[in-house]
Amino acid sequence: MKIALAQLNYHIGNFEANTEKIISNIQSAKDKGADLVVFAELAVCGYPPRDFLEFDDFISLCENAAQDIAKYCTDIACIIGLPIRNDVLQGKDLFNAAYFIEDGKVKAITKKALLPTYDVFDEYRYFEPSTSFKCIDFKGKKIALTICEDLWNINDNPLYVSNPMDELIKEQPDVMINIAASPFSYTHDDERIKVLSDNAKKYHLPVFYVNQVGAQTEIIFDGGSLVFDADGEMKAEMKYFEEDLQVFDLTEVENVRNKYPQAERLTDIEQIHDALILGIRDYFQKSGFSKAVLGLSGGIDSAVVCALACRALGAENVMAVLMPSKFSSDHSVQDALDLVNNIGCLHEIVPIKDAAVAFDSMLAPAFKGMPFNLTEENIQARIRGTVVMAMSNKFGYILLNTSNKSECAVGYGTLYGDMCGAIGVIGDVYKTQVFQLAKYINKERELIPINTIVKPPSAELRPDQKDSDSLPEYDILDRILYQHIELKQGSAALIAKGFEEALVRRILKMVNVAEFKRYQTPPILRVSPKAFGMGRRMPIVGKYLS
Amino acid sequence: MKIALAQLNYHIGNFEANTEKIISNIQSAKDKGADLVVFAELAVCGYPPRDFLEFDDFISLCENAAQDIAKYCTDIACIIGLPIRNDVLQGKDLFNAAYFIEDGKVKAITKKALLPTYDVFDEYRYFEPSTSFKCIDFKGKKIALTICEDLWNINDNPLYVSNPMDELIKEQPDVMINIAASPFSYTHDDERIKVLSDNAKKYHLPVFYVNQVGAQTEIIFDGGSLVFDADGEMKAEMKYFEEDLQVFDLTEVENVRNKYPQAERLTDIEQIHDALILGIRDYFQKSGFSKAVLGLSGGIDSAVVCALACRALGAENVMAVLMPSKFSSDHSVQDALDLVNNIGCLHEIVPIKDAAVAFDSMLAPAFKGMPFNLTEENIQARIRGTVVMAMSNKFGYILLNTSNKSECAVGYGTLYGDMCGAIGVIGDVYKTQVFQLAKYINKERELIPINTIVKPPSAELRPDQKDSDSLPEYDILDRILYQHIELKQGSAALIAKGFEEALVRRILKMVNVAEFKRYQTPPILRVSPKAFGMGRRMPIVGKYLS
Repeated sequence: MKIALAQLNYHIGNFEANTEKIISNIQSAKDKGADLVVFAELAVCGYPPRDFLEFDDFISLCENAAQDIAKYCTDIACIIGLPIRNDVLQGKDLFNAAYFIEDGKVKAITKKALLPTYDVFDEYRYFEPSTSFKCIDFKGKKIALTICEDLWNINDNPLYVSNPMDELIKEQPDVMINIAASPFSYTHDDERIKVLSDNAKKYHLPVFYVNQVGAQTEIIFDGGSLVFDADGEMKAEMKYFEEDLQVFDLTEVENVRNKYPQAERLTDIEQIHDALILGIRDYFQKSGFSKAVLGLSGGIDSAVVCALACRALGAENVMAVLMPSKFSSDHSVQDALDLVNNIGCLHEIVPIKDAAVAFDSMLAPAFKGMPFNLTEENIQARIRGTVVMAMSNKFGYILLNTSNKSECAVGYGTLYGDMCGAIGVIGDVYKTQVFQLAKYINKERELIPINTIVKPPSAELRPDQKDSDSLPEYDILDRILYQHIELKQGSAALIAKGFEEALVRRILKMVNVAEFKRYQTPPILRVSPKAFGMGRRMPIVGKYLS
Repeated sequence: MKIALAQLNYHIGNFEANTEKIISNIQSAKDKGADLVVFAELAVCGYPPRDFLEFDDFISLCENAAQDIAKYCTDIACIIGLPIRNDVLQGKDLFNAAYFIEDGKVKAITKKALLPTYDVFDEYRYFEPSTSFKCIDFKGKKIALTICEDLWNINDNPLYVSNPMDELIKEQPDVMINIAASPFSYTHDDERIKVLSDNAKKYHLPVFYVNQVGAQTEIIFDGGSLVFDADGEMKAEMKYFEEDLQVFDLTEVENVRNKYPQAERLTDIEQIHDALILGIRDYFQKSGFSKAVLGLSGGIDSAVVCALACRALGAENVMAVLMPSKFSSDHSVQDALDLVNNIGCLHEIVPIKDAAVAFDSMLAPAFKGMPFNLTEENIQARIRGTVVMAMSNKFGYILLNTSNKSECAVGYGTLYGDMCGAIGVIGDVYKTQVFQLAKYINKERELIPINTIVKPPSAELRPDQKDSDSLPEYDILDRILYQHIELKQGSAALIAKGFEEALVRRILKMVNVAEFKRYQTPPILRVSPKAFGMGRRMPIVGKYLS
C-alpha cells in the first residue's frame, strides 16, 4: 500500500482556496501512484479556526467542502480532518474529526479523544472528546487512525487519563496514521520525533504522521511530517517550513533501511529564522497585503526585523522609516542608513522634532513647568508610532512591530509608541537571541552593520540613555525571564537556584506589572514553547508576584 | 442549622487581603449564630486566577492561606473554594475544589466535575474534572455540595454528559449548597434564578447559593446570592454589586414563607449602570490607583464614561481633557464644558492644532501633496491619544477608553488614538444602549447636556462628518450586530430574517476585518453575554465572513 502524506499550508476559513489545494494534491498523489492520501487535522478549514466554530454556517461550509473533496476521491482513498456535528444532545456540539473517504464516499469517521486545552490550545472550548474507537479497513490492512494529541499522552506526566491507541491496538492494526496541526517552537521538532518514535515502539507499528505547514497569524506550523518503522526508527522526515507531498510504500517502510531522504536538521536559531520568515510572509499573503513599513532606529531589534521582512517580502516591498530626534546619536542614523544600503529596501527620513516641540507647547499650560521625565520619553515614542502608522494608512503598508521578548516581558517599551504594529516579529525572541539572529543573518555577508550589533543597546529617548540604566544586563535578565516564563518558576524557586533575591523580585514584579501593556500588543509570532499572547493568559489586576 | 452565605469581593492572588477578609467574615458569621459559613468558588485566590495556576508557588500560597483560615473555624464550620493538587499522575495537575472545615481541620474535600470552557471560561485548561461524589455530614444533615457549573447542566442543550447531583442524590441529602463565581451579564440574573429553582424542584431540596461580587479586570461578579426552598421558590436574594453576609435558618427556609428580604430587581440598563461603576471602581482599587483621565469630545460616549467615572471614583478624581481641532464644532466644546460644570470634575483644554500642523509638515516630503484622507483623520485621533497618555504619565491618571460596542464591532475607531486606554468602560454597550444609559444617568437631574444626547453622532475628524456617512443608522446596525455577535448568526441566517443582503455582508465583513484592531484594544468591562475580549476568540488572518 502506498501512502501519500500531503503537508499543506491552509488558510483559516478560506474554503475555496483550501478545497482547491486539497483537490489538486489528491490528483498529484494519484499521479504518483498512491493508494491513500492523508491530509492534516482540520485541513478543510485550517487550524485554529477558534470561535468561527461557533457559527453554524461555518460548520455547514466545512461539510460542503468535504463533499466537494469526496467527489475527487476515486481510484484513491483519502483521510482528511474537519469539524463535524455531535448528534448526541448531551455534550459539546462538535467533534474534531477525520473522514476516511473511498470511492467518492465517506466510509468511516474518526473522532479525537484527547483535546489539548493549554498554552495556545482551546479544543475543549469547542469539541466533545471521543469515547469510541475503531480501526479503518483498507486494502486488507487495518489502519489505526488518530488525531494529533491522541498520540501525545505517553510522557512522564500524562495530561489525560486514557490513551486512544490502547483501545485501537485491541483490533491488531497494521499501521498507525496520525494527522496533526502541531505548532512550531524551537524545541518542538525533537519532542515530536521522540513522542512518535515512542508510540511506534510501544505499539510495535509503523507510524505515518502528517502535519500542517504555514502561519496562522501568530501560530506557525513547521511541517516536518514523519514516518517511522515499527522499531521506532525514523524512516522519513519531510520538509520544514514548506509545503511537501511525498509517497511512501508501507512494505518498504517496514523492511528497507534508509530508503527515503530526510530533511536537514536545523539549529534553534536557524529554525527561528525560517519560522519568522514564514510567519511574516503568511501574515501578509493571507491578509492580502504585500508591503511592510517599520521604524528603523539604528538599533539591533529593528535591523533584524527589517532584514527578516526583506527576506520574506522582498526588499522592494519594505519601507524603513528613520525618525531621528535630538537624542539620536549620529551613529544611529548612519547605522540605519548603512543597513538600508546593504539590504536595498525603501526608506524615508522623518525627523520628529517639530511634533515634539508642538506637544511640549500644547502641554505646557497643563504641565506647568514640571521637569522632563518618562512622559516626554513616551511622547517621542508615540510621535514615531503616529508617523509609521501614517505611512501605513497613506500607502497601505502594514506596520511590523520590532519589540523583543525581553522588553515585552519587563514592559520596557511605550504602549501606542514602539509597541504599535500589526504583527510582532521578534516578540518571542529574547534580546540575547536577537544578537544570535543578527549574526546568523550576516552569515554570508554583512547586512546588519557591525556597529549595530556591538554598540550598547539604547532607546535614545533622553541624553546618553542606555538600556542597562533601567534593566540588568541582558544575559542575566534573559536567564531569569526564561526560568520564569518558559519554565514557570516563581520567586522562591529562582532564589533557590542562586539568583539574587532583590533582582528576582524586581524582575518578576516588572513582568507582572507589564501585563496591561502586553494585553494591548500585537499578536506575536510564536517560536518558543511559551510566547506572550493567547498561550499565556494572566490576570491584569492580579496581585500575585507584584 | 443556621447557614451564613458570605458574598465577598476578592482580589486575585492577594492572599493577605483575601485571607483577612475571609477570617473577619467567619467571625461575623459566628457572631450572628451561624453553624456553617459558606464562601464562594476559588475564594482563597479570587476568580479567575488564569495562568497564575500554572505556578507551583501559587498553589502553595493557596494551601497556606487555607490552613490559616482553618484555624479560625472553631465553633463554626466553613465551606470555601480553592484550587488543590491532583495526587493522581494521570490527568491535569489540579482540581477546582472546596474544603469543608470543622474544628479547625479539613474534614472533606469536594471537587468540581463540570468545567466551563467557553466564552470567558478556561477551566479545563487547568483542572481535572472530578469523577467521585460524596455528601458532607454535618450536624445530622447531609449536604450535597457542588461548585458552580456542576448545577448548570439541566437546560435544553446540556454541555456535559453527566450531572453531579444525579450521583449525590443517591445519598439522600437534606440540602444543596452551591458555591460559585458566576459573572454578571444583563441576562444572567434571570437565568441563574431559573437554573437554581429548576435544581431545587428536580431534586426536591432547598438550595443555598453563594456567588462572588466585584470586578476582576473585565469580568464583573454581581453577587445576588440566593436561597430556594425544596419547591423551587426563591426565599432570599442577596445584594447585587455589593458585599453581603446573611444568615439563614434551614428549618425556616423549609417552612416559613416570605421570611427573608429580597433584593430589588433592576432593569437591564440599571444593572449595566451599576456593573460599570463597580467595574471602574474595582479596576482602580485593585490596581492601586485613584485618579482617571479621559478625552471629552462633547459626544455622548465620552460624556457617559465621564459621568460613570465620577460616580465610581468621585468627580475630584476625574480629569476630562478637551482637545478641539479645526474640525470641532463650537457646540462640541460647549457641550463638553457644560458636562464638566454639571458634574464638577477637573478639566484641561489642549487644542491639537500645533501637533496637527507639525505632523503635516513632517510628513509632507513623504506624502508629496497627496490629498487629505483617512490618514490625516487618524493622525488627529493619535495626537489626542498621545495627549491623554501624556496626562496619564505625568500625573498618574489612568486613561479610560470611551469606545462603544458598535464602533468596536465595525472598527470605527483609530487604533492608538481613541482606542487607547487601560480599561474599556462602554466597549460592551451598543450605541443605542449608550443613549439609554445617558438618559438613566440624567434621571434625577441633567448631568449630560441634552444637546450631547440629541445631536447626530460625529467623530469630527473632517468637515461636517457624521457617523451615518460611513455607517448605517445605529438602530439597524445594532440589531444586526446583536444577531451576529451575541446570537452567532452568519450572513445566510441574517438574510433569512429579512435584513438587506448587501448591508448584512458589508457589516459582517467590517466586523471580521476589524479583528486586528480589537486584538489590541484594552480589556472591556463585560456586561453582555458576549463581550469582545477573552470571551470571543477569532482568527485575525481568517477569511470566513471577510
